Amino acid sequence: MSLIDETHDPSRTSWVESANGHGEFPIQNLPLGIFSPPGHHVRPGVAIGDYILELSGVGALLPDAVGHLLTGPTLNPVLALPAADRRGLRRRLSDLLSNPTHRETLRPLLHRAADCVVHLPAAIGDYTDFYVGIHHATNVGKQFRPDNPLLPNYKYVPIGYHGRASSVRPSGVPVVRPNGQRKAPDEERPSFGPSRRLDYELELGIWVGQGNALGRPIPIGEAQGHIAGYCLLNDWSARDVQAWEYQPLGPFLAKNFHTTVSPWIVTAEALAPFRLAQPPRPEGDPQPLPYLFDEEDQRQGAFALELEVLLSTAQMRADGVAPFTLSQGPATNMYWTMAQIVTHHASNGCNLQPGDLIGTGTISTAEAGGFGSLLEISQGGKVPVSLPNGETRAFLEDGDEVTLRATARAAGHVPIGFGACTAFIIPAP
Amino acid sequence: MSLIDETHDPSRTSWVESANGHGEFPIQNLPLGIFSPPGHHVRPGVAIGDYILELSGVGALLPDAVGHLLTGPTLNPVLALPAADRRGLRRRLSDLLSNPTHRETLRPLLHRAADCVVHLPAAIGDYTDFYVGIHHATNVGKQFRPDNPLLPNYKYVPIGYHGRASSVRPSGVPVVRPNGQRKAPDEERPSFGPSRRLDYELELGIWVGQGNALGRPIPIGEAQGHIAGYCLLNDWSARDVQAWEYQPLGPFLAKNFHTTVSPWIVTAEALAPFRLAQPPRPEGDPQPLPYLFDEEDQRQGAFALELEVLLSTAQMRADGVAPFTLSQGPATNMYWTMAQIVTHHASNGCNLQPGDLIGTGTISTAEAGGFGSLLEISQGGKVPVSLPNGETRAFLEDGDEVTLRATARAAGHVPIGFGACTAFIIPAP
Repeated sequence: MSLIDETHDPSRTSWVESANGHGEFPIQNLPLGIFSPPGHHVRPGVAIGDYILELSGVGALLPDAVGHLLTGPTLNPVLALPAADRRGLRRRLSDLLSNPTHRETLRPLLHRAADCVVHLPAAIGDYTDFYVGIHHATNVGKQFRPDNPLLPNYKYVPIGYHGRASSVRPSGVPVVRPNGQRKAPDEERPSFGPSRRLDYELELGIWVGQGNALGRPIPIGEAQGHIAGYCLLNDWSARDVQAWEYQPLGPFLAKNFHTTVSPWIVTAEALAPFRLAQPPRPEGDPQPLPYLFDEEDQRQGAFALELEVLLSTAQMRADGVAPFTLSQGPATNMYWTMAQIVTHHASNGCNLQPGDLIGTGTISTAEAGGFGSLLEISQGGKVPVSLPNGETRAFLEDGDEVTLRATARAAGHVPIGFGACTAFIIPAP
Repeated sequence: MSLIDETHDPSRTSWVESANGHGEFPIQNLPLGIFSPPGHHVRPGVAIGDYILELSGVGALLPDAVGHLLTGPTLNPVLALPAADRRGLRRRLSDLLSNPTHRETLRPLLHRAADCVVHLPAAIGDYTDFYVGIHHATNVGKQFRPDNPLLPNYKYVPIGYHGRASSVRPSGVPVVRPNGQRKAPDEERPSFGPSRRLDYELELGIWVGQGNALGRPIPIGEAQGHIAGYCLLNDWSARDVQAWEYQPLGPFLAKNFHTTVSPWIVTAEALAPFRLAQPPRPEGDPQPLPYLFDEEDQRQGAFALELEVLLSTAQMRADGVAPFTLSQGPATNMYWTMAQIVTHHASNGCNLQPGDLIGTGTISTAEAGGFGSLLEISQGGKVPVSLPNGETRAFLEDGDEVTLRATARAAGHVPIGFGACTAFIIPAP
């Protein structure tokens, strides 16, 4: 079933003029979020051009099933709706923001985005992180096991682990460099202090829509219906802490000090025109086990998304030097689809809930230029990156600002963006 | 500072007569929970003998700082209070339930516990599980690495990982056997189906009280103040799924299908008389790094708690055979104290929140008789346990019911219990 409808029409424009030709938030996007206008408390909104339309005030103009849910401090009640209601909301918002008859009514509800503060769009019940970027898994695995980088389970199991929900923050909140136990291979004992190998990870995030009851798995054919939308996700990582702590139960304090997400939920509906077939598996790879295989998912399980990571150091900002592009690459380098991630997560009966956040894991290209972490770019710290102003970076320094970006592009469609996922590092306490 | 006061006086009795001599809930315990009387909605209560006193109706008799917080469906607002307010609540409850002048006022608020349903005492923000039972880590490690069971980080790092908050359930909720990918060493490819090696794990749980802000660690000397109370915790585990999936990011679907907790928060105050010195580390072991070391914590960081695991199969229940004791042992077999767990968790700035749940990890004795899992008791499934009715168990079968119990004992004090942490297994879907 195609979900492309009149809301995706490339000729549709908005009476919010900055939306027309806007690289991220044209009227074809309509991402949902939570924001606060200057001096006011938090409320739901939709990004349109350089503005945010406050949705709490629009309730009476919205479909009955949705309008009354757009008043609180989170979008969880909207995420809990069936996809059909979310599509109804999208169609109505597209109409309200394109048809000039609504201009005078809605203009008082528009706020300049630059003046507003964005918040997390939902109260996150549980945050899970996966590891489906096969080139990242290979690149990192090579540093530990040059001859055998991927473990035997990788091509059967969408590997994932639980992260920390309490420390997820929206774009813009500074990251405090974590203290932790670090032990270099040549040191006899560990010591405790600020991480010396602080890194970012480029990921996409899934915002879970309707959940499942405990003990009731989600069949692969129904998995897409449980995904409300997507965001960018930076899984900040302290590599020295990670190397020392992670055996045998996985990453813990190396990751849970902070996770940054882009603040807008780019809905599954907005991304409908940017679907791609999941790239075929390399010859000789096993087929997914039956519970993870669905033909429709294989036909349209990937996304035409271009991902980008930018770095700006304190010195670069002082010198007026533009942010430096650390990497660029497509989001197709995922060994498992979003539906496979969701179905695997619930395959043992684990209950997902509206507002849960699921990270894909770091998305890297196979070759240099599109690596999603400094660990890969600097080859474990051995080959620092040279920046345009003469500085170098093996890992992140205090004052460094990392920005993730994503743009969806497809022939015959207006490109849409995710909004920035950005934060800078402040010193350890 | 001693926290032992008149509420611990062994001569104090209650006008709720079943409390006097009650093995678990005498007036010296007063654990807090959430329950629903028959046909009524959920509310806070305190367990006293065979009864539960409804606290929402007692508000006017309670200290001002607390009374108005005991009306909602969770105890999170009470957990967020400073320990001094929790102590005030305890003193007042002890007075109300011992002094017969309150009998007529309070009697209508007493409900027979056997008629009520217990619920989770708090909305759990994040659930973390540790691995501080050194004999469990050694016993399990031996199955994989006979010559080198403990990894090099174990005696420096309180190892932990994040679990799933959404699937934590109170005692009494059946556990659905999980499906999952399993691959025996002699199988070429994994298959998907019901776990064949379902196990329990005997743990204690910490209910976090006051939290810390993101980026602000909790010094070891202040950690006890962030613990509101304790429970029993069964970390149900699918060993076959775990063995195949856990590299390199740790346990995931092998654990997150269900976690059972005993429903009462046994407060830190109630356990004050049962404090013990943390057992000295074996000769040659490293001292904790300074951020994890506190003399006061070493002097009173352990608990005089006797732990017990009981198994009852469907056949045993049909035959009228009493539950079989699988193991018994003290809770002193923890390599790290509760304060060290809390301080380590927050040492990188990770923010804990009121109502977070932290498991200790499986607590086993060094020798057989007190192993906290079937994996250890049956030596990885090789030596099944013989049950009194002639059945045997290497791992759990459908219909099996596992019960964890804990009793605190100290000379000159009335023993107190945690209430049962029990659930039985139902077949995979």
